[in-house]
Amino acid sequence: MIKNQLVREIVINALNEDIGKGDMTTENIFTEHHNSRGQIVGKEKGIIAGLDVAKLVFSMVNPGVKLIGKFTEGEEVQDPPKLLAEVEGPTVGLLQAERVALNFLQRLSGIATQTRKYVDRVKDYPVKITDTRKTTPGLRILEKHAVAVGGGVNHRFGLYDTPMIKDNHIKASGSIKNAVEKIRKTVPFTVKIEVEVNNLSQVEEALIEKVDIIMLDNMTLEEMKEAVKIINKRALVEASGGITLGNIKEVAATGVDYISVGALTHHLRALDISLNV
Amino acid sequence: MIKNQLVREIVINALNEDIGKGDMTTENIFTEHHNSRGQIVGKEKGIIAGLDVAKLVFSMVNPGVKLIGKFTEGEEVQDPPKLLAEVEGPTVGLLQAERVALNFLQRLSGIATQTRKYVDRVKDYPVKITDTRKTTPGLRILEKHAVAVGGGVNHRFGLYDTPMIKDNHIKASGSIKNAVEKIRKTVPFTVKIEVEVNNLSQVEEALIEKVDIIMLDNMTLEEMKEAVKIINKRALVEASGGITLGNIKEVAATGVDYISVGALTHHLRALDISLNV
Amino acid sequence: MIKNQLVREIVINALNEDIGKGDMTTENIFTEHHNSRGQIVGKEKGIIAGLDVAKLVFSMVNPGVKLIGKFTEGEEVQDPPKLLAEVEGPTVGLLQAERVALNFLQRLSGIATQTRKYVDRVKDYPVKITDTRKTTPGLRILEKHAVAVGGGVNHRFGLYDTPMIKDNHIKASGSIKNAVEKIRKTVPFTVKIEVEVNNLSQVEEALIEKVDIIMLDNMTLEEMKEAVKIINKRALVEASGGITLGNIKEVAATGVDYISVGALTHHLRALDISLNV
Amino acid sequence: MIKNQLVREIVINALNEDIGKGDMTTENIFTEHHNSRGQIVGKEKGIIAGLDVAKLVFSMVNPGVKLIGKFTEGEEVQDPPKLLAEVEGPTVGLLQAERVALNFLQRLSGIATQTRKYVDRVKDYPVKITDTRKTTPGLRILEKHAVAVGGGVNHRFGLYDTPMIKDNHIKASGSIKNAVEKIRKTVPFTVKIEVEVNNLSQVEEALIEKVDIIMLDNMTLEEMKEAVKIINKRALVEASGGITLGNIKEVAATGVDYISVGALTHHLRALDISLNV
Amino acid sequence: MIKNQLVREIVINALNEDIGKGDMTTENIFTEHHNSRGQIVGKEKGIIAGLDVAKLVFSMVNPGVKLIGKFTEGEEVQDPPKLLAEVEGPTVGLLQAERVALNFLQRLSGIATQTRKYVDRVKDYPVKITDTRKTTPGLRILEKHAVAVGGGVNHRFGLYDTPMIKDNHIKASGSIKNAVEKIRKTVPFTVKIEVEVNNLSQVEEALIEKVDIIMLDNMTLEEMKEAVKIINKRALVEASGGITLGNIKEVAATGVDYISVGALTHHLRALDISLNV
Amino acid sequence: MIKNQLVREIVINALNEDIGKGDMTTENIFTEHHNSRGQIVGKEKGIIAGLDVAKLVFSMVNPGVKLIGKFTEGEEVQDPPKLLAEVEGPTVGLLQAERVALNFLQRLSGIATQTRKYVDRVKDYPVKITDTRKTTPGLRILEKHAVAVGGGVNHRFGLYDTPMIKDNHIKASGSIKNAVEKIRKTVPFTVKIEVEVNNLSQVEEALIEKVDIIMLDNMTLEEMKEAVKIINKRALVEASGGITLGNIKEVAATGVDYISVGALTHHLRALDISLNV
Repeated sequence: MIKNQLVREIVINALNEDIGKGDMTTENIFTEHHNSRGQIVGKEKGIIAGLDVAKLVFSMVNPGVKLIGKFTEGEEVQDPPKLLAEVEGPTVGLLQAERVALNFLQRLSGIATQTRKYVDRVKDYPVKITDTRKTTPGLRILEKHAVAVGGGVNHRFGLYDTPMIKDNHIKASGSIKNAVEKIRKTVPFTVKIEVEVNNLSQVEEALIEKVDIIMLDNMTLEEMKEAVKIINKRALVEASGGITLGNIKEVAATGVDYISVGALTHHLRALDISLNV
Repeated sequence: MIKNQLVREIVINALNEDIGKGDMTTENIFTEHHNSRGQIVGKEKGIIAGLDVAKLVFSMVNPGVKLIGKFTEGEEVQDPPKLLAEVEGPTVGLLQAERVALNFLQRLSGIATQTRKYVDRVKDYPVKITDTRKTTPGLRILEKHAVAVGGGVNHRFGLYDTPMIKDNHIKASGSIKNAVEKIRKTVPFTVKIEVEVNNLSQVEEALIEKVDIIMLDNMTLEEMKEAVKIINKRALVEASGGITLGNIKEVAATGVDYISVGALTHHLRALDISLNV
Repeated sequence: MIKNQLVREIVINALNEDIGKGDMTTENIFTEHHNSRGQIVGKEKGIIAGLDVAKLVFSMVNPGVKLIGKFTEGEEVQDPPKLLAEVEGPTVGLLQAERVALNFLQRLSGIATQTRKYVDRVKDYPVKITDTRKTTPGLRILEKHAVAVGGGVNHRFGLYDTPMIKDNHIKASGSIKNAVEKIRKTVPFTVKIEVEVNNLSQVEEALIEKVDIIMLDNMTLEEMKEAVKIINKRALVEASGGITLGNIKEVAATGVDYISVGALTHHLRALDISLNV
Repeated sequence: MIKNQLVREIVINALNEDIGKGDMTTENIFTEHHNSRGQIVGKEKGIIAGLDVAKLVFSMVNPGVKLIGKFTEGEEVQDPPKLLAEVEGPTVGLLQAERVALNFLQRLSGIATQTRKYVDRVKDYPVKITDTRKTTPGLRILEKHAVAVGGGVNHRFGLYDTPMIKDNHIKASGSIKNAVEKIRKTVPFTVKIEVEVNNLSQVEEALIEKVDIIMLDNMTLEEMKEAVKIINKRALVEASGGITLGNIKEVAATGVDYISVGALTHHLRALDISLNV
Repeated sequence: MIKNQLVREIVINALNEDIGKGDMTTENIFTEHHNSRGQIVGKEKGIIAGLDVAKLVFSMVNPGVKLIGKFTEGEEVQDPPKLLAEVEGPTVGLLQAERVALNFLQRLSGIATQTRKYVDRVKDYPVKITDTRKTTPGLRILEKHAVAVGGGVNHRFGLYDTPMIKDNHIKASGSIKNAVEKIRKTVPFTVKIEVEVNNLSQVEEALIEKVDIIMLDNMTLEEMKEAVKIINKRALVEASGGITLGNIKEVAATGVDYISVGALTHHLRALDISLNV
Repeated sequence: MIKNQLVREIVINALNEDIGKGDMTTENIFTEHHNSRGQIVGKEKGIIAGLDVAKLVFSMVNPGVKLIGKFTEGEEVQDPPKLLAEVEGPTVGLLQAERVALNFLQRLSGIATQTRKYVDRVKDYPVKITDTRKTTPGLRILEKHAVAVGGGVNHRFGLYDTPMIKDNHIKASGSIKNAVEKIRKTVPFTVKIEVEVNNLSQVEEALIEKVDIIMLDNMTLEEMKEAVKIINKRALVEASGGITLGNIKEVAATGVDYISVGALTHHLRALDISLNV
């Protein structure tokens, strides 16, 4: 995933933002022949994500700067500090890439770490933790990757790949039936259709239309249990709305298949990782 | 600031990420002539930042979607919920822009709100809170704007606009003197030069070179006080390293001019803001 | 669909290709104040697709050039010639956009027309005609649109939105079971999984894995009938391989849900449409 | 031709279209160290064009994927099937590039094959077959290359490189003389000027202005013969309009120098070529 | 010419270069509602070129800033100072665009002015002054426009639009004949072919091949006269090499059709033009 | 400096401009396996700048074309002709890159040479020569580099990196004091603030605000001397306006720290440099 054109553009963009027309300090101190090596160190407990992105950052500043990973994607730092990777190569490139590489690595590891907490909390249930579209503008592909690394499973990537019928769409169409029919007529038959419902009668309506996923929006635990029973495996069931580490276990106990958690990506605590040169 | 080409590119980028080849739901439910209006509501206490960006998001999806601000940039939500803005126009555009607009608005308001906490904590001192390069890749210009909206003052935008001489540069050059001389020879005379120092003898060296800013890196409170005394207004003084809401007041009391806080932008708690259509 | 950023880029690209650094003829003959009007005429029988793209072409060369459609997307030209649209505005822009607008309109109408032939041929069956990835590089979004306009239903847009497990993937994984498991672990739960099978025993394997779509690749009519019976609505069934207008009716009679036809987009006969100024 | 920046952009564009944010199937089945080899096979008679583009597609997905051509550009598949090229390298890259590479190769070979038919039909005359601007938006440079590979000679690439004075320009200027004079005043002296004429008196007018090329638009065979006689080598003569494989020989017999055929590029029958891995 | 996509990109590029992430001065002093007006004044004698580019610069910074031309493209400032144009609109936009607009206007007027000097010097001869590829990287389209405005006629725009056979090509091919044949086989029949010759025997060879333009490279005046006589209107004749205002009249007297002058664009004296707000 | 992304974009842009869809001559004469070598020769006295850019041009056309520098950036050609560099590699690439490489090299060396003249003229004074924003649109980063190579020191790169308070800003704000305060509130504390003053009382005002740089705009020599005395090292002093090689020595004698000279970049005399293959 990490090597495609879109990720390269994100990285170029980030490097242009930080280096722009040139680094006023390092380029004037070190010759291009000066080499250095450094250690990337995980300084607190957490799940590591983004090592490939960091590697790409170094190599895009200067192909001569190599990152040799000592951790793998998704591995856990348990007794910090831990050596995550070594970097070596021309000093100018290494120092110019440092901040951008760490910015990616710390953020993605922060997301993976946070995801793991939610995943662990419900580990006794067959439920999966999933993400939302509440991601940082421009970084969704990477943040969804970090969620997956942390043990979550991704929801749709954008408006373009999965129709999700919400309140407004139902109202405008007159019924779930009408909305689903309109959608079915135009979208590829290869996509799943999801409907967001607020009550049990909408659950019934959605089932009649044979939608693939039913999202229970801000329902009570009781309602969710009832909905799961009604649906009875005829559609995937997703719980959504107001879910926290505090209440997620109870939601899992209702029998839903997926729980979506906006906080995975819109509350961020960057993991403490540094580079010593 | 908010209207320039770079901000437009950030927004286009974010919209392409979310909408891509088209919205499978809304475009198939509403005709292009269907209009709606909605309210953007602040649901928790905090400082609002990013209304202009949100406005741009709506207008770039469809110039017919208008955002009328009811709050101004930097205004505080005190008794939530509060109406922050109204949006109206073609429903398709309005709903397609919703998530991206909120993603910007919630994040930037989160940063402004967090900055304000640090600013308030040291309000009895003449010190200023400043940011770092630990920003989200691709969004630095907006995040620095949010810091300013929250009452902070910006540090350099990137490696390209202000030389900052650190440990590695000093070692490689042999001395602060050598490093500063190399830099002075090549950078525009219009830029300030900053040196990061670890001890008081380096402070003295830096002063001899008449650098503009001296950054005290991870010094003790005692050392900082002493440094401020030695410098005696001959350079701006910045404290950096390990600063939290818990210890910032004591740092402020040392008399430094600026305190840089990485957490302003690398720990994020998006402010709770929603759009009701 | 037609108005998003991706379509705009396709059009800009096409205009740059044809106009480049400037039109050596028209720009030197007409002043910018000279206006003209013209008629876009359908000169042979067929289904019209791409009027919105043509409109965009004219307006992007010069916002003053208006296209007023007299036909709607998907409407059929029955007794040619028929007036499809009128254009009017500054002559320079009108003439510069002409060829590019027609190139889009003729090609897309050609695809819609061809699709309609396949759709009509199987109109007595509940089967749907679907497209493939054998589209013109760079124009897939428009060509898929034309297929839909012609009465087809779209298959996946690219490698990125629907996993399709083929021969090579099955061999490398050891079994359909292994391949599906690997895929399920990593892709969003919102996507459907399709497996391409060559024989009935693979059909059984795929059903055990509860895949969403089973593609019958180059099977005989007998095999297809048998497969449909085995599958028995537990998955969508797609027939693929060597399908022509000559044999499609027999394939439809096997009871499959979808028939994919590469020729919809890789054999093109542009519809005869011209602009008279 | 095939290696320049513009072709690279066309290929990047096509790859982004198909692979986008990542291939959901292959990337999750094969490790990056898994290698494969495959054969590109021509399965019907025709002229091969686009092998260099296909090679570029593979190498841009992954520089480790090599295409070794067994056919040269313009060579004819006479007794299908024939091995056109071998590809080998990392399986992920190879499979991801497959469809896009074939899409280019099949289309360009289809154009070369069709061009060859027209060229062969008039092989007893000194006339040349030439193309038009009725090309696929975004692919003109490649399609014109395929025409040349098939034995045709290219006409202008766009509005920017050769002035062609048509009906509307003559009317607006008052006369061919006026139009030519306006054009001559502004275009580089290094370009040829072409005039489209509808009758013999316009031929005379064009000759007086010493234009370089005279295009006989939709003239009868008699008129064309007469025009050729009048022109008498004082300008190049191009026949245009309504030319098919059925009537092209008679047009060639009139003595014109060039015959332009829109169908070379706006009617496409992709050549049957496949990749076996 | 001035309004196409390529010119827009040049202007966007120039504005990004100067304004980047925002204007630190003007944006912080003036509100967006503050308006101003200013006069663009020609302060020395010369030919004005680039007013449309300047207009585009202002309108691209802010569509509300209008430039009303008082001079036309190619008009001469005879008794400076002269009012060239008025600008009015939002002050922020006006001041931000000022320097970039003047940078274009001064340079292009400088080129037009210089071209006019060469044109005037040979006004008693039927010869034309033409430019070369010695233009500023990135600005060729505008600089060639300025040459035309100054009374020159453009030579080819780049390597892509006119084949020019030079020394190295002749040597590698074995003869002018071979080189021309190779070229003829591949380039569009719509382009002219130019050959650069060093002596009279090469002139004869080129004539046999019926090339369109013969460039006399660094020949003596005697040789040029002789070449013109030999060629006798069978090809256009261009003189090139070492031509200055001092010797151009003598070159014109040899009877050549075109004289190319590198100094038109590689020696630049920006015309003195300023904006008073 | 020379290797970053921005410079690469400038070079790509220049190559696209010249080569576009392909070189009609060289690509049709030489096979891709034909190699050549050539000498880049300085044919007149001057300072060499831009060798790295030339190297980049060759390698971007074809990585196989190597430039081996025989001169270093900033070295002087004293007894022309001098060998500046050797190039070798595939002939097609070498010849296609030639003109663009020379266009950069000649222009940048011209600027460095001109800068050196100004620098030499004031070599007996401690003053520095600095540049302005009167640079070629799109090439500022390279032209500023050439100024530095010639011995000058760079002024700000754009509106985005240093606030410069001019006449209009002061008027609109009411006073220098107000303008500086507005600016200070919003710009990073890491930037210097410059004020342009027209008289001595403004000098006093600026000093009170502790601005970093005071620009004396079009003052008489007497006024400048007086200003320098008043300022007395409390700010950097820059002289600007109407400075020529004729009067610069007298300006230097006033004691100012910097003299800005627009002519460094807006009057250009490309240095005579050629490539012999």
